[in-house]
Amino acid sequence: MKIVVLGGDGFCGWPTALHLSDAGHDVTIVDNFSRRAIDAELGASSLTPIRPLAERLDAWEEVSGRRIGFAEIDVARDYDALLALIGDEENGPDAVVHFAEQRAAPYSMKNSRTKRYTVDNNTNATHNLLCAVVESGRDVHVVHLGTMGVYGYGTAGMKIPEGYLTVQVTADEDAAGNPAEEHQVSQEILYPSNPGSVYHMTKVLDQHLFAYYAKNDRLRITDLHQGIIWGTHTPQTARDERLINRFDYDGDYGTVLNRFLVQAALGYPLTVHGTGGQTRAFIHIRDMVRCIELALANPPERGDRVKIFNQMTETHRVRDLAELLGRISGAQVAHVPNPRNESAENELHVVNDAFLELGLKPTTLSDGLLHEVEDTARRYADRVDLDKIPARSLWTRGNRAGVPEGAPTQRP
Amino acid sequence: MKIVVLGGDGFCGWPTALHLSDAGHDVTIVDNFSRRAIDAELGASSLTPIRPLAERLDAWEEVSGRRIGFAEIDVARDYDALLALIGDEENGPDAVVHFAEQRAAPYSMKNSRTKRYTVDNNTNATHNLLCAVVESGRDVHVVHLGTMGVYGYGTAGMKIPEGYLTVQVTADEDAAGNPAEEHQVSQEILYPSNPGSVYHMTKVLDQHLFAYYAKNDRLRITDLHQGIIWGTHTPQTARDERLINRFDYDGDYGTVLNRFLVQAALGYPLTVHGTGGQTRAFIHIRDMVRCIELALANPPERGDRVKIFNQMTETHRVRDLAELLGRISGAQVAHVPNPRNESAENELHVVNDAFLELGLKPTTLSDGLLHEVEDTARRYADRVDLDKIPARSLWTRGNRAGVPEGAPTQRP
Ligand SMILES: NC(=O)c1ccc[n+]([C@@H]2O[C@H](COP(=O)([O-])OP(=O)(O)OC[C@H]3O[C@@H](n4cnc5c(N)ncnc54)[C@H](O)[C@@H]3O)[C@@H](O)[C@H]2O)c1
Ligand SMILES: NC(=O)c1ccc[n+]([C@@H]2O[C@H](COP(=O)([O-])OP(=O)(O)OC[C@H]3O[C@@H](n4cnc5c(N)ncnc54)[C@H](O)[C@@H]3O)[C@@H](O)[C@H]2O)c1
Repeated sequence: MKIVVLGGDGFCGWPTALHLSDAGHDVTIVDNFSRRAIDAELGASSLTPIRPLAERLDAWEEVSGRRIGFAEIDVARDYDALLALIGDEENGPDAVVHFAEQRAAPYSMKNSRTKRYTVDNNTNATHNLLCAVVESGRDVHVVHLGTMGVYGYGTAGMKIPEGYLTVQVTADEDAAGNPAEEHQVSQEILYPSNPGSVYHMTKVLDQHLFAYYAKNDRLRITDLHQGIIWGTHTPQTARDERLINRFDYDGDYGTVLNRFLVQAALGYPLTVHGTGGQTRAFIHIRDMVRCIELALANPPERGDRVKIFNQMTETHRVRDLAELLGRISGAQVAHVPNPRNESAENELHVVNDAFLELGLKPTTLSDGLLHEVEDTARRYADRVDLDKIPARSLWTRGNRAGVPEGAPTQRP
Repeated sequence: MKIVVLGGDGFCGWPTALHLSDAGHDVTIVDNFSRRAIDAELGASSLTPIRPLAERLDAWEEVSGRRIGFAEIDVARDYDALLALIGDEENGPDAVVHFAEQRAAPYSMKNSRTKRYTVDNNTNATHNLLCAVVESGRDVHVVHLGTMGVYGYGTAGMKIPEGYLTVQVTADEDAAGNPAEEHQVSQEILYPSNPGSVYHMTKVLDQHLFAYYAKNDRLRITDLHQGIIWGTHTPQTARDERLINRFDYDGDYGTVLNRFLVQAALGYPLTVHGTGGQTRAFIHIRDMVRCIELALANPPERGDRVKIFNQMTETHRVRDLAELLGRISGAQVAHVPNPRNESAENELHVVNDAFLELGLKPTTLSDGLLHEVEDTARRYADRVDLDKIPARSLWTRGNRAGVPEGAPTQRP
């Protein structure tokens, strides 16, 4: 297949591009390096020493014999370049995997500028892609990386289904609109959304863009409601240090588990926000790249509604993760105020049958975590900037998370 | 009250600004004249001779003794100017009425450029407004003009409620997430959306922006799900010809009734799309300005969810409107292919109790229509550009509405 990976220089996009190239697909990466620019803006950098994309691509060709193409395009701004790529009669893609969004909830909540950037970038990136596919006239399958966070983090008394919810409505008219006795009508609707940040809200907006274009223009679209990724390496990124993947641990971009890993490696207390009763969904990066491949191999039919998968393999409470890591590494657990505007405790039960039925064999946290502590966090611990560990974003005004007691002030 | 009217040079915004000024409020208009620029782009113009805004404002001061302020701001782009206006400690508004969006469904469907402009302009305008209110720290009530079109045009066996729908879900877990016997749980959700054009879709995106900011930042927001406006004059715009309101009749911006009115005045056949079985909701422009005033006087409390009103007073099938106008004016009715991707026939039953309970006394079509034919359409018939009457937008590729047989080629 010819596959374009939008955001292919990022944490998910890079290992996806390598995995698909390794599997024999003809891959082209599109990126505008905005994520690297945000690193510079925040004075942060990946724990792992990621190389410039050109060097990564050369290294991949060296070790695999395969060339991955590249086009520097701002998907949210350079519509004509995007259309030229997607609409190319000879070399246009069969599928586009769309990772090209600002993806950090804390960054999206820092200030008006970052809120506005997140909405503007993500909405226009997604909409430009959809317009370009329509305008190209080509039957391109769009695979988008969404988030479990569109559902909100409550349970409504049942497992969260894969995108659609069956509801009963009390009706009092017949099909012709005449008064009738009250009766129940069953309908399947998009699961009602309840996003917890501006970032998550942009994924809700994406859902409605997809629903519209699937209906009006019969685009074939798959939306992957992904949990939090953990792990850093895939078999491909591990083949050469120049292929190493990004590992974010700062308060804005570092996911909860990555930040615990770095804290564990440094002997920094594991900072649990609030009670740590928040339950989150997780998936290993190796399973993520396999899921993308499975989604590409199982597209919806033309005219189908958006195909939605829950792309996660296990759920954990944040405090349980902290305890698990504490046991592995000997680190302390510290509770700090929660900067987010969210429930202190929540359950999260999720249906993820679709990928399991397609053959996914999950990598579990209990199997892989020790490896991450040793092979990634300890290995690069001397590159850590301690100042970047606390989460400092504001969800609502006057709400600030602190630095825990006993936090070290020096690297090991 | 101090009120800012975003989009105050437009069809709804101008009479609203005058009405609120007349009622004693301190009004400031914000506009970037994008609507006038689109007239130039389309080679179209208002049937009525609208004056430049500066002249309108002077004329209003002359006849009323009241000055309406003005700031030329692109709400989707000039965030800092918007923030300065809204955040002004002394003169900042108590409420903002937000009309500043690209509002024509056919225009939003013309091509990729107009689709992308509509999404970019409308989403960023709404989001900038919400960010500015949050950043200002001021408790500003936001009143937005949405559309009945977010609901889609089917009935689901009941009247369309005002924004929220009560549904039953089959649950099999208790509150703590443990397995339990199957039971029904009742929830109130945002009415599932089903927009019929890119324009309508942007109003769905707006709804999700509002829901998020009402929840996360406790903004006070009212969203008015408005039907199609008919009528041109309000008591204020009728006071001087320099105050006259815009009347669009071209295939892109002219609503169905305005286009029938012009066709009737010219002896052009009334072009009904498809069977004309589409049912639509309507409201007179005089009632619209009163509804805005009622919404301003009845804001939600801080912390409330978005307050949603259905702002419409009657529903009609398109072919019934054509027949009514045919009877009044003697015009023929012609069926042409429907350029829209929609059901040929639909019912539309709508709850609109909230405004009626607040005292709204609707102006009905059967009372006001003759006046519109005579006082607007016939009066300015010599300004009509016949080429602009047919709807030429494409909903999906290959779909074109034609010019009916017997259409005149000359103005009267
Ligand atoms: N990492 C996770 O745990 C996780 C979880 C759920 C969902 N996701 C989703 O997966 C996707 C990828 O996430 P990630 O962790 O790889 O993020 P990332 O920031 O590492 O990668 C995103 C890439 O997209 C690029 N990009 C952003 N905007 C662009 C634009 N307008 N034009 C071109 N390129 C642009 C960035 O430069 C970056 O290389 C995101 O949409 C994210 O929301 C990630
Ligand atoms: N006219 C109707 O029948 C109707 C029906 C339902 C809803 N509405 C809604 O009411 C609102 C007003 O509609 P209208 O008929 O008055 O449209 P209009 O095009 O006549 O007026 C909109 C005004 O907003 C301005 N504007 C647009 N984008 C702007 C921006 N970025 N910055 C500053 N100004 C900007 C335009 O220049 C114009 O003056 C729209 O949101 C529309 O969707 C209208």
